[in-house]
Amino acid sequence: MELAKKRIGIDIGGTNIACGLVEEGQILYKTSLATNASEGKESVFNSIFKAVQMVLDNTETTIKQIAGIGVGVPGMVDMDTGVVKLAPNLYWEYVPVKEILEKKFKVPVVVDNDANAAALGEVLSGAGKGNKDVVCITIGTGIGAGLIINGKIHHGKSGGAGEFGHTIVNEKGPLCNCGSRGCLETLTSATAIVNKGKDILQQESDSILKDCIVEGQPLGAKEIFLAAQKGDKWCKEVIEESCKHLGMALANVVNLLNPEQIIVGGGVSQAGEALFRPLKKWVNYYSLDILNKDLSVDPAELGNDAGIIGAAGLIK
Amino acid sequence: MELAKKRIGIDIGGTNIACGLVEEGQILYKTSLATNASEGKESVFNSIFKAVQMVLDNTETTIKQIAGIGVGVPGMVDMDTGVVKLAPNLYWEYVPVKEILEKKFKVPVVVDNDANAAALGEVLSGAGKGNKDVVCITIGTGIGAGLIINGKIHHGKSGGAGEFGHTIVNEKGPLCNCGSRGCLETLTSATAIVNKGKDILQQESDSILKDCIVEGQPLGAKEIFLAAQKGDKWCKEVIEESCKHLGMALANVVNLLNPEQIIVGGGVSQAGEALFRPLKKWVNYYSLDILNKDLSVDPAELGNDAGIIGAAGLIK
Repeated sequence: MELAKKRIGIDIGGTNIACGLVEEGQILYKTSLATNASEGKESVFNSIFKAVQMVLDNTETTIKQIAGIGVGVPGMVDMDTGVVKLAPNLYWEYVPVKEILEKKFKVPVVVDNDANAAALGEVLSGAGKGNKDVVCITIGTGIGAGLIINGKIHHGKSGGAGEFGHTIVNEKGPLCNCGSRGCLETLTSATAIVNKGKDILQQESDSILKDCIVEGQPLGAKEIFLAAQKGDKWCKEVIEESCKHLGMALANVVNLLNPEQIIVGGGVSQAGEALFRPLKKWVNYYSLDILNKDLSVDPAELGNDAGIIGAAGLIK
Repeated sequence: MELAKKRIGIDIGGTNIACGLVEEGQILYKTSLATNASEGKESVFNSIFKAVQMVLDNTETTIKQIAGIGVGVPGMVDMDTGVVKLAPNLYWEYVPVKEILEKKFKVPVVVDNDANAAALGEVLSGAGKGNKDVVCITIGTGIGAGLIINGKIHHGKSGGAGEFGHTIVNEKGPLCNCGSRGCLETLTSATAIVNKGKDILQQESDSILKDCIVEGQPLGAKEIFLAAQKGDKWCKEVIEESCKHLGMALANVVNLLNPEQIIVGGGVSQAGEALFRPLKKWVNYYSLDILNKDLSVDPAELGNDAGIIGAAGLIK
């Protein structure tokens, strides 16, 4: 009997449920449905069931040909039971995802945090292919991390590892949602960068930032990077300060964990060299040379597919 | 054939070489010789050979009854080859410790960093017995860490993980030997605490610190803790600030790794509750509640024996 090699990977986000059929780290087919988390968890599970069926139908695959279903969830997961303990964006508390999906599909189900799944995806077939010790961070509305240690996802005692966004880099910094001051998330997330951009728009009349905004579009981190590239001194300062804080926090991780690679994904990472050049400079500046000489800092390669591929990779 | 259960553990320090016969995490017999590193590496190896022979002789054990020899070294080790790449306190660079000892004793030898070995010792038979995710820090002249992740020592890409002392907690802080500013080591090590005590002796005439020093003895961290306990406001402030910085750095590690336990050893840890009470307060203050609710912060239990027991534990 041949071992089933195909797996289904599901990435449940606050906005969309992405679902794909994956074989040897490649997506054969994928689809996406709205999460509509506010309509309740039964509605979300119906969409998940539907997405899985769509993937099976469109690839002429039966559930018996599937080794299992992996699921990434934006929350904290009990790895022993597959229960999602807390997922604020889905309004979920103690939802037995593994049990529900195994009952429905009669195949093994593994549930993990979405940042962990994305990190696994990147080391399975993306920017970190084949690497064993990788810190994979995502900079978007917030800042999260998935840690690959010795080739495996690191979960920690209660499945909550990777809260890198709540690294305190300045104890007198802005107040964070978590209650602390100066968390990295309040200084370097897209939200933080945009907030600083809004201040520039209000306060600095000589800034060209206003000319970089497309009429009718909201201000995003992208526009601030653009203005900085065009030479705007205020926006350049925002980018430099953000990279300095992120670089320092990452350097502390480098000194602690001695990873071989840092992978940076999420919306802000699309700024490319405008982000990576100063970021690498500060990581190297603040970390020990004997550790950063073996380190590379790279953009994520898989984008949203990382979540699907990594979720599928949760199935052994 | 019965499997040999006895192992020899060697902890090579800058001052002493400690060597013991270990069975099931317990030291059956131990001895200690001066390292005399300044006399060259041959002299150090002769002392190691002698210490091993003393341990065998005094326990009526033959080398054939030994499963192997584990060695902890104060430096960076290439885990694939057992070569010590750099050990400043021993004046060693690229010393093939595994090869030398295997040639001499004809048993398997495993070499690791001493902080890693001590961490392993504490989870094998000390404060962290049976725990899987533990951060073990040592606060002495400097600050080091050994990380146990998923039950195993975490080495990182080049064997350099655990440089927790070089976590930057205040980018405008004092200059560190590593070249950065505001490393934890410059703020919370015994050396840093003593330096602050010296400032108090010079500047604060109402401080009782001078009365806590035994005549002819140098000022140590111990005296500053003593003065603080007796109510000296200046020394209380030093302790509180030190614990705040250490607590913040540890909270960042808690948010990143979600460990189940932090073990604190080294000279400063002997201050007991005067250290642990404020330290726990600040760790909890700065870390996410969902992560610190599963965390305990405990003193190391094995003292110098951790290095011997952990080194022996390196042998599978």
